[in-house]
Amino acid sequence: MPGLLQHAVTTEVPGPKSRAAAKQLDAVFDSRAVHFVVDYDRSEGNYIVDVDGNRFLDVYSQIASIPVGYNNSTLIEAAKSPDMISALVNRPALGNFPSATWAAILRDGLLRVAPQGLDKIFTAQSGSEANELAFKAAFMLRRRRERGEGVEWSADEINSCLRNAKPGSPDLAVLSFKNSFHGRGFGSLSCTRSKAVHKLDIPSFDWPQAPFPALKYPLEDHVEANQAEEAACLVEVERLITEWSCPVAALIVEPIQSEGGDNHASPAFFQGLRDITHKHNVVFIVDEVQTGFGATGTFWGHEHWKLTSPPDMVTFSKKAQTAGYFFGDAMLVPDKAYRQFNTWIGDPARVLMSKAVIEEIVSRDLVQQTARVGDVLYGELEALARTYPDHIRNLRGKGQGTYIAFDTVDAPALVKGMKSLGVNIGTCGVCTVRLRPMLIFEEAHIPTLVGALDKVLRQS
Amino acid sequence: MPGLLQHAVTTEVPGPKSRAAAKQLDAVFDSRAVHFVVDYDRSEGNYIVDVDGNRFLDVYSQIASIPVGYNNSTLIEAAKSPDMISALVNRPALGNFPSATWAAILRDGLLRVAPQGLDKIFTAQSGSEANELAFKAAFMLRRRRERGEGVEWSADEINSCLRNAKPGSPDLAVLSFKNSFHGRGFGSLSCTRSKAVHKLDIPSFDWPQAPFPALKYPLEDHVEANQAEEAACLVEVERLITEWSCPVAALIVEPIQSEGGDNHASPAFFQGLRDITHKHNVVFIVDEVQTGFGATGTFWGHEHWKLTSPPDMVTFSKKAQTAGYFFGDAMLVPDKAYRQFNTWIGDPARVLMSKAVIEEIVSRDLVQQTARVGDVLYGELEALARTYPDHIRNLRGKGQGTYIAFDTVDAPALVKGMKSLGVNIGTCGVCTVRLRPMLIFEEAHIPTLVGALDKVLRQS
Repeated sequence: MPGLLQHAVTTEVPGPKSRAAAKQLDAVFDSRAVHFVVDYDRSEGNYIVDVDGNRFLDVYSQIASIPVGYNNSTLIEAAKSPDMISALVNRPALGNFPSATWAAILRDGLLRVAPQGLDKIFTAQSGSEANELAFKAAFMLRRRRERGEGVEWSADEINSCLRNAKPGSPDLAVLSFKNSFHGRGFGSLSCTRSKAVHKLDIPSFDWPQAPFPALKYPLEDHVEANQAEEAACLVEVERLITEWSCPVAALIVEPIQSEGGDNHASPAFFQGLRDITHKHNVVFIVDEVQTGFGATGTFWGHEHWKLTSPPDMVTFSKKAQTAGYFFGDAMLVPDKAYRQFNTWIGDPARVLMSKAVIEEIVSRDLVQQTARVGDVLYGELEALARTYPDHIRNLRGKGQGTYIAFDTVDAPALVKGMKSLGVNIGTCGVCTVRLRPMLIFEEAHIPTLVGALDKVLRQS
Repeated sequence: MPGLLQHAVTTEVPGPKSRAAAKQLDAVFDSRAVHFVVDYDRSEGNYIVDVDGNRFLDVYSQIASIPVGYNNSTLIEAAKSPDMISALVNRPALGNFPSATWAAILRDGLLRVAPQGLDKIFTAQSGSEANELAFKAAFMLRRRRERGEGVEWSADEINSCLRNAKPGSPDLAVLSFKNSFHGRGFGSLSCTRSKAVHKLDIPSFDWPQAPFPALKYPLEDHVEANQAEEAACLVEVERLITEWSCPVAALIVEPIQSEGGDNHASPAFFQGLRDITHKHNVVFIVDEVQTGFGATGTFWGHEHWKLTSPPDMVTFSKKAQTAGYFFGDAMLVPDKAYRQFNTWIGDPARVLMSKAVIEEIVSRDLVQQTARVGDVLYGELEALARTYPDHIRNLRGKGQGTYIAFDTVDAPALVKGMKSLGVNIGTCGVCTVRLRPMLIFEEAHIPTLVGALDKVLRQS
């Protein structure tokens, strides 16, 4: 049983075999970001094993993307299934030649967990691609409304777009938030505002960024200030939408800004965004690439908001093991075929893995487990923060499952210390430690994590 | 043996079961582009079988992306392998936690077929993503050279890029050609110039497009005019590079413009591009997404050019069953880690499939076979063109394997007629029929293809 495995580190990290393997890799593939080289055959459940034989409790989970543990038996069954063999061997151009099983694979997989009100799907291969496809749907909807239903494209539009010129290639914008991360394609990167290393030297669109609420913690001590902060941000969002140099066709927001430092906002703030986007006919896109699939203690992070009406589009990837967007309004399907299209339109093999992930989550009630375990974990971290108030600051994520983070003094040193004690942990933002355990993380794993934190902070 | 299978169509196409399946799919997934719904279990080798039981000789091959046939036994073995199970179940964040086997998978797979002089690789998930990653590498190289080696980023650069403003988000361009297709992301789509349906309503970068040679056929009758045409295009390329409103960091070109109508140019034209890009320090990117992996009778389309020095980057996807770019110059690796990065950086499961595809191509000598079969096929089509000179015009692709195309009067009607006769065939450009058989297409399949063409054209 994975829960009974023990972490065990016997070399420095990365160890000599990891370093040798990374060096070998570096001749053909950039290996500068390698933490350590992994023996996936020996990794199991919550534990990742490196080539030096070190076993770590993994609360980083491949940048928050392993959903139900290494070598999960349900996933292994799916990987061995005849459907999977066919999907791998006979990769279809899904838009032209879908398989007879495709509709059922969607129905019994991803559509089982479709956000309320969003019963249609478009599949993709990465979070970045999913966001860009959502933007394209929003842009096409915007122009369709401006043009008028049923009005044909003009010759000027058709000709000018091939020159990347107006009116065919219009100036339209997507609004995003400071410190957000939405991917690294040229459109998604134009919405990403997290770090210079993500953006520097890459041409980008002149799209607006609104301030994201900078909440003060603990929340209960700063109720009024935080309300005022959120209200001010909403005012600025509406100002940007109405005053920007070109029409804002869509707004994209993460339920919790993840790469940007695990920044939260209240349900009221997001309801405010829903209201403003409704008022101004802006497509409201919720980027659940990192928050989706259960880690916040609800299947989708935005369920916490209890919106009066659903977002227009919800994008996903990472723990889904595939990617895409959900939507409800049939107008978000472009007016003609082949406008939202590409050769593969996702990968049925990965969509089949997603189906197995969903089966595992539902049958084992892992979202509820994550909510429960997260509450216990949060409590323990709150206690630890009282012992180390300088090293655990702005603890956040209460009631958000295991999606918990805190600011610290020297995040890289903390990560290094945790690795030496057998815990693989990640950071985000400038000085934030983010917890991203898998959905199979249990109460039994908490002492390892909290004990290692205690030990590292005691020595710092 | 697949070669001995027979095509057999017993219903209209799409048949009643296809139509019913597409309708069912349409409730959740746009099905307007569906040709027919496929029974992949019954498809085999060069033959695709639909849910109505119709069997077609497939010379479209999932938009040129099936390399070695449906239910290929070598690919099935790879799909069942322990490496594959692990890659599917334990999907890594490749940049941070590569597997112990990753270097060997690259070495024994994709790197075996690396274009001459390009011994490094970066993996991706689609041709569009591969091209955009190549653009990003080119932009970062450009700014690194302008900044000076070892010069740190300025505070102004760091701060401005987060606002999508200069100097951190610079105005830099990629030059592409009229009628080109390079993908549908916001950066790749800014280089795509094929059809309005691909581009309309989507904001794009103000990047230059050069004319692509419009050659006259048959080539031997228009030698001087074609040389003059290519020379004029080269002059315009150099003019755009030197006079465009912002620096042109990269030039991207397809060896054969595929979506845009199977437009060819001579080796001398491409050598001219190599010379101009060298002269002006422009990164020369060859987009082999459709031409790569053997169909032109050489492994890479650009091998036909016999360039004096290799292109700077070669991108691939489709028949590779995965995607990415090859490069040689270590300066194309950005100056810092995490600049060229994303969570998954491709998909090891698909890279394993690519390795099996390469094994199959090499062990069965399929590139040479394609060159040989293509020559025979071209000869038969030349003869057919003499019979139907109005319906088979501008036959092209001589000496380019099975990568053959011609213009016709009514391409959709021809495709429909061919389907009714058991041949699944594709179009491109405005009035072009493109042949994209798999690499296992043999002489034995030619009579079916040419016979059906003869029959359709006789009736038209």
